[in-house]
Amino acid sequence: MAVDDLYRLLVDVPDRPGIVAAVSGFLAERGANILEFDSHSTERHGGTFHARVEFQEPVGGGGEQEIAQAFEQLVATPLAVRHWELWPLARRKRICVLVSREGHCLADLLARWHAGELDGDIGLVISNHEDLRGEVERFGVPFLHVPVEPGGKAQSEARILEAVAGRFDLLVLARYMQILSGDFLERAGAPVINIHHSFLPAFAGADPYARARERGVKIIGATAHYVTEELDAGPIIEQDVERVNDHATAEQMARLGRDIERTVLARAVEWHLQGRVVVDGTRTVVFT
Amino acid sequence: MAVDDLYRLLVDVPDRPGIVAAVSGFLAERGANILEFDSHSTERHGGTFHARVEFQEPVGGGGEQEIAQAFEQLVATPLAVRHWELWPLARRKRICVLVSREGHCLADLLARWHAGELDGDIGLVISNHEDLRGEVERFGVPFLHVPVEPGGKAQSEARILEAVAGRFDLLVLARYMQILSGDFLERAGAPVINIHHSFLPAFAGADPYARARERGVKIIGATAHYVTEELDAGPIIEQDVERVNDHATAEQMARLGRDIERTVLARAVEWHLQGRVVVDGTRTVVFT
Amino acid sequence: MAVDDLYRLLVDVPDRPGIVAAVSGFLAERGANILEFDSHSTERHGGTFHARVEFQEPVGGGGEQEIAQAFEQLVATPLAVRHWELWPLARRKRICVLVSREGHCLADLLARWHAGELDGDIGLVISNHEDLRGEVERFGVPFLHVPVEPGGKAQSEARILEAVAGRFDLLVLARYMQILSGDFLERAGAPVINIHHSFLPAFAGADPYARARERGVKIIGATAHYVTEELDAGPIIEQDVERVNDHATAEQMARLGRDIERTVLARAVEWHLQGRVVVDGTRTVVFT
Amino acid sequence: MAVDDLYRLLVDVPDRPGIVAAVSGFLAERGANILEFDSHSTERHGGTFHARVEFQEPVGGGGEQEIAQAFEQLVATPLAVRHWELWPLARRKRICVLVSREGHCLADLLARWHAGELDGDIGLVISNHEDLRGEVERFGVPFLHVPVEPGGKAQSEARILEAVAGRFDLLVLARYMQILSGDFLERAGAPVINIHHSFLPAFAGADPYARARERGVKIIGATAHYVTEELDAGPIIEQDVERVNDHATAEQMARLGRDIERTVLARAVEWHLQGRVVVDGTRTVVFT
Repeated sequence: MAVDDLYRLLVDVPDRPGIVAAVSGFLAERGANILEFDSHSTERHGGTFHARVEFQEPVGGGGEQEIAQAFEQLVATPLAVRHWELWPLARRKRICVLVSREGHCLADLLARWHAGELDGDIGLVISNHEDLRGEVERFGVPFLHVPVEPGGKAQSEARILEAVAGRFDLLVLARYMQILSGDFLERAGAPVINIHHSFLPAFAGADPYARARERGVKIIGATAHYVTEELDAGPIIEQDVERVNDHATAEQMARLGRDIERTVLARAVEWHLQGRVVVDGTRTVVFT
Repeated sequence: MAVDDLYRLLVDVPDRPGIVAAVSGFLAERGANILEFDSHSTERHGGTFHARVEFQEPVGGGGEQEIAQAFEQLVATPLAVRHWELWPLARRKRICVLVSREGHCLADLLARWHAGELDGDIGLVISNHEDLRGEVERFGVPFLHVPVEPGGKAQSEARILEAVAGRFDLLVLARYMQILSGDFLERAGAPVINIHHSFLPAFAGADPYARARERGVKIIGATAHYVTEELDAGPIIEQDVERVNDHATAEQMARLGRDIERTVLARAVEWHLQGRVVVDGTRTVVFT
Repeated sequence: MAVDDLYRLLVDVPDRPGIVAAVSGFLAERGANILEFDSHSTERHGGTFHARVEFQEPVGGGGEQEIAQAFEQLVATPLAVRHWELWPLARRKRICVLVSREGHCLADLLARWHAGELDGDIGLVISNHEDLRGEVERFGVPFLHVPVEPGGKAQSEARILEAVAGRFDLLVLARYMQILSGDFLERAGAPVINIHHSFLPAFAGADPYARARERGVKIIGATAHYVTEELDAGPIIEQDVERVNDHATAEQMARLGRDIERTVLARAVEWHLQGRVVVDGTRTVVFT
Repeated sequence: MAVDDLYRLLVDVPDRPGIVAAVSGFLAERGANILEFDSHSTERHGGTFHARVEFQEPVGGGGEQEIAQAFEQLVATPLAVRHWELWPLARRKRICVLVSREGHCLADLLARWHAGELDGDIGLVISNHEDLRGEVERFGVPFLHVPVEPGGKAQSEARILEAVAGRFDLLVLARYMQILSGDFLERAGAPVINIHHSFLPAFAGADPYARARERGVKIIGATAHYVTEELDAGPIIEQDVERVNDHATAEQMARLGRDIERTVLARAVEWHLQGRVVVDGTRTVVFT
């Protein structure tokens, strides 16, 4: 199947009778074939309706511009659609990864990308340390070192913004140990996904494994979430957990945790790239 | 929300452009509101399209008969729909449970039903032993003892058929240790769900826990599946697993297994009652 | 194997060379056979050594008193053992369950006990409501209704203490929705196990499922822990989790959660009854 | 703590009274300090007793030779110990990895080793293809290409034997797609661990993911096991599983499976290196 005529449509609209018919009717009219159709209503009545459609344009169908204009005119405006996005599957999303010293999540993303498993391209890695430069450059990916000096956070963020703004569709914090300001998030021009090394909301903040051990939990986890201004409180995309042995030291828990972190982050990134993650207030709905 | 005007529609049709539009357009035309819409295509092209829709008829809308006739005429016939089913949510499914001596799955189903958690009603329990009569009757459910004498299997099946045929929408084998004949399955007039105490296809057949221990597996499981003539080979509805301790005896594994069995069976039954399970050849797709 | 000559020995001693030899030598001297030997050192050096030994006295060996005296004299005193306990396996632990209105954990414990799966006996159920009386009495277990009037907590606790003090080896809060005072805990004369319906420390306090849904977690859990004066902060014995669907309502999460709660509580109670749970400060070590 | 005076002792002896006392008494006599003590009895009576002890020799204690001689004389011979092994923790185990074309398990092992997380050293990688040479050599590890020509299996095995025999403590098949002969296994001089990409015993043999999808399982898994002459039937060391989406293709299942495979293999290798895996007939007991 030529990927050139495949599109993904995300629609976010106040719920009411006739929405599925309007969206699918629009596609049927133009001879497009629905390959996947997922939807979620936040409430049985009066909530928001989220839909995700993958469809194939017929031979000789219009291009992205034409579909978008038609959809705006025939569906979005009449139905007062709150937000919608049309994405040609052939267009790969551009990813920038930020990392500090621990490289396991970064290495995992690079390996998946290299194996052709990622629906996007890692175009830049930024770090506040030099440690992982070699690991990155051997994949042919540019590595930008932006140190964070004491008191120099605003300056560092400005340098990062300069490098990323308008150039990327997604920023991934793959164990980047700096807190980004609300101002940065606003100006980044792309959503930011972070991996937190605990089963949020448990152990938000620093040193989750040490605190988990002290608290005596029997299971540890990791959480991938969109970054918002409030630390570790953004909408959760994915979580996973693993049982931990009572004899484990905090270091052994951290080691076990790293395996969970990289898997959880990879899933969240992949789902995001495939347009499967819908933010619904403080939550997400993932169409897997 | 009055449940009286709620319906569920299951549709099973060769995939082609326009199906979602036809089904949702049919509902929009009559002013019905889609509450849930799930679909699955078995292939990207040329497979089968399965849809599950929960919708609400408008005030003054037609009843079950009228909707069904209209759907047949306006959608099913023109689109050559292979199979479809309309079910009013107000109509509760009728369940018959078959059990032998181990009562943990039966007790769990009865307790869920009693707690109002089951979208159906347990109307009869049949057993080849008397052991669980008290457990059943205290819930006000009739208990029918149908012993299976050596060489008397056909006779027993005939008695069971007499008691169930045409009266139930679902038969549940909640640790019923008799193998049902293909003839029985054909004439039962309702799907049959079984719980098998292993992670199928591993350890099909008898004594799965003892064999699991001997084989040294680190994880045990249970499988709920539709019963077909071939033993333990019907489409799987749900499975779950639990890590097992290396020190566990076969009896301890069985004990741990019972917790998995009852949960897996309850999920499968519940999903079936809610019309969430679509059989697709040797597999099922569950719209959770 | 006659259970009459089986014993369990728990030892808790500052770590140093020779402890295993002293304990096992003591048993070897008297011809006892070690059936299980588990140990845990809290640190590689200078921590606490916890051991759990199941052994069989030889034919004609001493009784409980004699063994205890000999152990005190030959091991505990010379080694400055901090805490030790000898328990004849033939002596079943006596359990009192406290419950409010939700009966799923209670029903599960009663069913396990009835099935002979519990190494102890449920001798009394106390509730601040009458709802579950029938459920309890049909197992032949006494049911005591101790309502809690506004402002009457101290009085209620006094009535409970009167009923339990000195008569039970374990109190189990199987969804008992009253907070017990520190004074009560001190005078209860037995450890108290509680089931909390969240993955602690996340969602401590009230309404965990509603808050979990609002927070958008992807996995829910339950936690069984010893009760201390600080609410939901006692040493965790067991936790388990289950993945939750993004479409689930808070009520559906609660329903799913109940399955986890009863299993987690049952495991914690069973492990406690078998002397497998060692409290190590704010944590526990479970010898499974 | 200097690692130079740390040892691990594995003991495998017919069960009888006095064994723990004999082993721990031997260590106490020489002033050694037990850091970890784990044991397992295969039966309550008359089975085999397996123990794993980590201990620290006192300052000025004997070396490996002296301890071994003393143990042989004072414990192993008198108690008819069936098998025992003394291992200085300072001596790192030497690992040879065999791989075909899929590099995810190999990459994971190399990364863990590089991060200092492996209690052993990867000294050689052998492959029947050239694909992964670069990946291996960048870690400074020698890569040996041993192609397998049609009809040339014996010759290939001979070349591998030449490269490994006597030089390694462990062979790891990290997705090595050749079946090793019984003769090879006998002459390899070291245990061989394989990762199988299914939850054994389900889907032994080829193409497990495609077969799992066809069978409609809801959970997939991976299994690390010691290799024996009978294909996929050796003692299981570790297994893990992951729930799989009903919409997943066989390729997506394989992708998800790779994450499980590398984690399961890494755990099995690590536990083996730490002497935590005891083979008990067709099973293993892992002292975690």
